[in-house]
Amino acid sequence: MTEQGGLTRRGILGVGAGAALTGAFTGVAGTYAARRAEAAPSPAEAADRYDPAAPVPFHGAHQAGITTPAQDRMHFVALDVTTDDRQQLISTLKAWTRAAERMTAGAEAAPGGVVGGGPYGVPQDTGEAYDLEASGLTITIGFGPSLFDDRFGLADRRPEGFEDLPAFRGDDLDAARCGGDIGIQACANDPQVAVHAIRNLVRIGFGTVSVRWSQLGFGRTSSTSTSQVTARNMFGFKDGTNNLKAEDPAALAEHVWVQPDDVPGKAAWMAGGSYLVARRIRMHIEVWDRTNLQEQEQVIGRTKGQGAPLGQRQEFDAVDLAKKGTDGQPAIPETAHIRLASHEHLKGIRLLRRGYNFTDGSDGVGHLDAGLFFIAFCRDAAKQFVPMQKALASKDALNEYIEHNGSAVFACPPGVRRGGYWGEPLFS
Amino acid sequence: MTEQGGLTRRGILGVGAGAALTGAFTGVAGTYAARRAEAAPSPAEAADRYDPAAPVPFHGAHQAGITTPAQDRMHFVALDVTTDDRQQLISTLKAWTRAAERMTAGAEAAPGGVVGGGPYGVPQDTGEAYDLEASGLTITIGFGPSLFDDRFGLADRRPEGFEDLPAFRGDDLDAARCGGDIGIQACANDPQVAVHAIRNLVRIGFGTVSVRWSQLGFGRTSSTSTSQVTARNMFGFKDGTNNLKAEDPAALAEHVWVQPDDVPGKAAWMAGGSYLVARRIRMHIEVWDRTNLQEQEQVIGRTKGQGAPLGQRQEFDAVDLAKKGTDGQPAIPETAHIRLASHEHLKGIRLLRRGYNFTDGSDGVGHLDAGLFFIAFCRDAAKQFVPMQKALASKDALNEYIEHNGSAVFACPPGVRRGGYWGEPLFS
Repeated sequence: MTEQGGLTRRGILGVGAGAALTGAFTGVAGTYAARRAEAAPSPAEAADRYDPAAPVPFHGAHQAGITTPAQDRMHFVALDVTTDDRQQLISTLKAWTRAAERMTAGAEAAPGGVVGGGPYGVPQDTGEAYDLEASGLTITIGFGPSLFDDRFGLADRRPEGFEDLPAFRGDDLDAARCGGDIGIQACANDPQVAVHAIRNLVRIGFGTVSVRWSQLGFGRTSSTSTSQVTARNMFGFKDGTNNLKAEDPAALAEHVWVQPDDVPGKAAWMAGGSYLVARRIRMHIEVWDRTNLQEQEQVIGRTKGQGAPLGQRQEFDAVDLAKKGTDGQPAIPETAHIRLASHEHLKGIRLLRRGYNFTDGSDGVGHLDAGLFFIAFCRDAAKQFVPMQKALASKDALNEYIEHNGSAVFACPPGVRRGGYWGEPLFS
Repeated sequence: MTEQGGLTRRGILGVGAGAALTGAFTGVAGTYAARRAEAAPSPAEAADRYDPAAPVPFHGAHQAGITTPAQDRMHFVALDVTTDDRQQLISTLKAWTRAAERMTAGAEAAPGGVVGGGPYGVPQDTGEAYDLEASGLTITIGFGPSLFDDRFGLADRRPEGFEDLPAFRGDDLDAARCGGDIGIQACANDPQVAVHAIRNLVRIGFGTVSVRWSQLGFGRTSSTSTSQVTARNMFGFKDGTNNLKAEDPAALAEHVWVQPDDVPGKAAWMAGGSYLVARRIRMHIEVWDRTNLQEQEQVIGRTKGQGAPLGQRQEFDAVDLAKKGTDGQPAIPETAHIRLASHEHLKGIRLLRRGYNFTDGSDGVGHLDAGLFFIAFCRDAAKQFVPMQKALASKDALNEYIEHNGSAVFACPPGVRRGGYWGEPLFS
């Protein structure tokens, strides 16, 4: 009464994903270049041929899930490592990598999938994504500052300046939503595929890691490609209009990817990686929803309908911080969110934002627990995110309506070569 | 710097949704018949022409969101009424109905949408679904037993037998996830559309209701139409294979829709309605994931791969409770979930299940807080759900792996006539 072997998610291993798994490997640089070339057509062409069910290549110079056009849904988990055994941690990273290669290609976490191993074996895939497509799944791993303590002999490999984020004015952090030895971001166009990926990695890591916190994001807020339309956050405003985009490799090299010179000596493993900053930002939407349109637009610095910078007409019109309104005051107020977060204001600082809207039930006092799970990738969190957040924390008009209650930072190593494993250079 | 008027979600009011809102109303029965006729083509044809972005008609003999083919995503909220003023409650129900008509058609919650009312007005739509399609949104309302106390003069209109569910063996209920004067289920193929709908109804209800609890469901588990493939729950098994289907009106009349004879006298308002049972079922997925395939299949009573009843080959093969295996034991064990839940075992009892998978972060002790938000519609909860759940609670092998921690029941009134409002017959 038990099916034996041979089952694959929609038989996809036999077709598209099979090619991805078994096709000739063109080398790290080649793979990355090929993905870059993919992005070369015009945004309209790219959008036309975008298939939300298709797989995203796993291997490359950089991890997928950073400049990959932001998928619609996300599941994020922060893990504590519960062993002190370095080899066990490495074995888990290897097993995770094999599973991630398979799942991102649209296959189960292990060969044989939900019934592999026979009736007396434990299924090596939990099965809830068995009939679903690859759905653009990407899985991106990062290591928290706490991993670089004495347990695993990694203390001298911590990149300079990589440490827990400092306290910011107004923070209301919940320790149960902060930190973690390891962070894993799964993004997909089907939430069940993202949840399945995290769950199976947690299952594989049983005995090595345990879940510290996790977060489901139901809708992307940020575009990371010119092929995507700008999405809206829970304040109803377009978010991430001026985000860095995958189609601008020079800007990514400057602001997102860790360069070899940034990480000399024993920290060199991080070259080609990026730092992921996560902040759980509760939005007091009920208060916001009773605020008039002018106040909302002055707080954000953009119009609500079009998303145009105040003083301009269209979403992508340039932000002009100097422009005055008819009343002689700055069109974009001094405390407006987009002014304080702008690279003009921050002496050139930019981040690649990749956040998600969340709704996690209610708070027990009659309000929805909703907001933005902010994710940003940057070349140096201490030099980019920290000064940006300090500027925002000091006088952003938005602070009246939000509350940062979760925080973490992870060092995401570079991409994985074929046959390698996540973080291999760190342990070599 | 503010757009004035005229904005609609993707201009949809000018096209498809405009027709839905302004088109000739063919009468309640006609609308329902038209929807039934829609379901007449073969499942394959229906699946081929299904458009997940299209609107679902709001008006009809029954509320939408019950036999509507289950959409992919859900947001559910339970509300407490915070006023004792009957007229205020009625006004809120009327305002909600107008907003629901608009939102299900793909428009904003009120004319003018995110910028209506001008710069000094509060936006009458929160905006986060401004650029999104109707996405098959349905909004379904129900009244909890607590609404029929002394506050609103409804005590004598409570249908006989409609009361809070009894305690079941093994229940581990969290009061903060139970009950509610009003329950609202929003289902859509885009989660942001479902969240937007609930949020805007809560906003409209400010001063009349407050949020008691809410639940996001990221993936449907149950098919409610023969045009849908069976989905999988968080145990990785196909769920709802033998569910009632929209294409079987005789079974729906027998098991789902309250018939006039069921609700004589002052309870007659409920004819054409249905009772919604909600149970938040935490699944201990980490324990399940360490269980071997045979145990999993014996617990459920189906194969994991195909979803065939044990002893059969294909998903839709008939469940044969009498069949013996080669060992002389029942192919479907005495404690198997599908045996205990089957209508053969329950003397003909059937429910229309319409549940959703959820993942709500972690539980603080290293596990994911995931499971099934069970929703079922039935003609009489006391005569259908209660005996079924008693049978399951007493000896379902699945109980080792699950925990019911939320519970509610709502009387969902019949559908709304054009110009009417949710629950109008109850207040007339």
